[in-house]
Amino acid sequence: MVSTRSREVHLVNRPDGLPTGSDFAIVDTTIDGPGRNEVQVRNLWLSVDPYMRGLMGTTRTYVDPYHLGDVMTGGAIGTVEISNHPKLAEGDLVLSNHGWRDRFVANGDGVHPIDPNLAPPQAYLGVMGMPGFTAWLGIHEIARLEAREAILVSGAAGAVGSVACQLASRMGTKVVASTGSDDKVKWLEDNATVEAFNYRKTKHLYRQLVKICRDGFHVYFDNVGGDHLEAALMSMRNHGRVVMCGMIGQYNAEHPPAGPSSLIVAITKRLTMRGFIAFDHAELEPRFQAEMAGLIASNQIRWTETVYDGLENAPAAFLGLFSGANTGKMLVRL
Amino acid sequence: MVSTRSREVHLVNRPDGLPTGSDFAIVDTTIDGPGRNEVQVRNLWLSVDPYMRGLMGTTRTYVDPYHLGDVMTGGAIGTVEISNHPKLAEGDLVLSNHGWRDRFVANGDGVHPIDPNLAPPQAYLGVMGMPGFTAWLGIHEIARLEAREAILVSGAAGAVGSVACQLASRMGTKVVASTGSDDKVKWLEDNATVEAFNYRKTKHLYRQLVKICRDGFHVYFDNVGGDHLEAALMSMRNHGRVVMCGMIGQYNAEHPPAGPSSLIVAITKRLTMRGFIAFDHAELEPRFQAEMAGLIASNQIRWTETVYDGLENAPAAFLGLFSGANTGKMLVRL
Repeated sequence: MVSTRSREVHLVNRPDGLPTGSDFAIVDTTIDGPGRNEVQVRNLWLSVDPYMRGLMGTTRTYVDPYHLGDVMTGGAIGTVEISNHPKLAEGDLVLSNHGWRDRFVANGDGVHPIDPNLAPPQAYLGVMGMPGFTAWLGIHEIARLEAREAILVSGAAGAVGSVACQLASRMGTKVVASTGSDDKVKWLEDNATVEAFNYRKTKHLYRQLVKICRDGFHVYFDNVGGDHLEAALMSMRNHGRVVMCGMIGQYNAEHPPAGPSSLIVAITKRLTMRGFIAFDHAELEPRFQAEMAGLIASNQIRWTETVYDGLENAPAAFLGLFSGANTGKMLVRL
Repeated sequence: MVSTRSREVHLVNRPDGLPTGSDFAIVDTTIDGPGRNEVQVRNLWLSVDPYMRGLMGTTRTYVDPYHLGDVMTGGAIGTVEISNHPKLAEGDLVLSNHGWRDRFVANGDGVHPIDPNLAPPQAYLGVMGMPGFTAWLGIHEIARLEAREAILVSGAAGAVGSVACQLASRMGTKVVASTGSDDKVKWLEDNATVEAFNYRKTKHLYRQLVKICRDGFHVYFDNVGGDHLEAALMSMRNHGRVVMCGMIGQYNAEHPPAGPSSLIVAITKRLTMRGFIAFDHAELEPRFQAEMAGLIASNQIRWTETVYDGLENAPAAFLGLFSGANTGKMLVRL
């Protein structure tokens, strides 16, 4: 059995508040070649995602937290270097969840071939992958958005938000997009039929929302929580739906921040607020993938990426998510 | 046309914070006898309800706010004194929404006969009326509670909560009831199959909930908001449902209080939080009334009342709602 060198990013400290580079360590290691039914994969693209912050503490949520001293697991696209698995061949492009490392050996059953004819490989970490699926679920399954409705999307230029905006606007809805920079506003206006604004330049969020959408929103797709959720609740129409997808503004809070003071309107406006996690809905993933592949093939969906190069920059890419350094999907290229 | 003397309670000041007696005035008036299709009704029982606080400001919610200088409208049970309406006869017991006054004249179409053989007249303001319907909707239509689930009810000894507890426990669910006095705990334990506790004697609400129901709640029926909602969210099971019925703890806040700092668990636990108002569901009221009449006839539901005597005490009865002065339905007897 041949040993091969690899490098991994380990979580070595559980952060309290915003993580720093010293919470991670780049570790040189060697891996043994694949055994029966196993494959050896060399990663090409690593995913960094906001949800990972939630796994860096000690609390079990919907999955176990990361183990201290172990690899930051997560989505990655790689190429099969050696295969002892009947369904995978050398050179196959594969999606896996083994995370931030150059190479790994694993049972081939947990390594999924992707079709680069449908989309570029790294799109399987974005528009064709978990973030795209999350956006699709939020719009169609959780909000059950309908034509001629009005929807507000926060974090609108992110991997999830940018897809949600486009899926919504394709339906003939009025889409209002909140994002954190003028460049992101421009990207959204150039690539999605939305009315975008830079919330960092907005003095009074609620008044801004009323100005843009006087009659209020049928749906709010929340990726940020905090002030956005508070203002959005006040801006909802009666019987509106709030898609609780993410609260990136709160993931690094050292103490749980106060919730929206406007929550009482959920009663008077008879709102439905629903939290969801993509992996609960795996049975819908094939339908999503078929639909998204069709949209990509017919050039009906746009996306962009923010790329950091080198495994050693995975922590920086991850931290960039919390300062809004990414437009579209944040990726690490190896 | 004969004129008759009556007295009314007017809202004369919009309170900022907790209302006081001086926000109301007892006004002597005379009413003209009924014209064509009209009836003259003498009220016997007035309802005071927490929702009324929401109509004392200037904000339109699901209905218009009270007019300053006009009568506090709301549910009342009375007897027809004079009828010019083909479907109502002198002596009929009727439910109306003309509020805090001794007598009124109105079109008979908006005055609804009640059947005192099914329940005592004042029960049509409680267990057989809007509060009972609200509890029934929350349990069956909003939560869609199922057998063998665990449910937490706050404000459990109130007009809504006490019915919600019983409807839930009848289904073979585990019911945990939070209430504000030892007497209310005793009433609940004597009359409903629940595990009740006095939250005023509870140092740490979340820990108390975990102690009583280690595996967490499938459903939280929220009548109070605030700390209860915050602790309940933390105590929910994955995929739980939060019935947002009321937030009595917040109706008198001078500034909107902070929301639950635990709201983020709505995502990680994939909760559905849904606000509702009974009058959206009028099509279900006949079904509710038939079911509740059956439960009353077979002695399968219990209720109690807290009664203030005299029109002039309607404001005091109303204010008593916010200090927890009532066990069961708060009523004013004329």
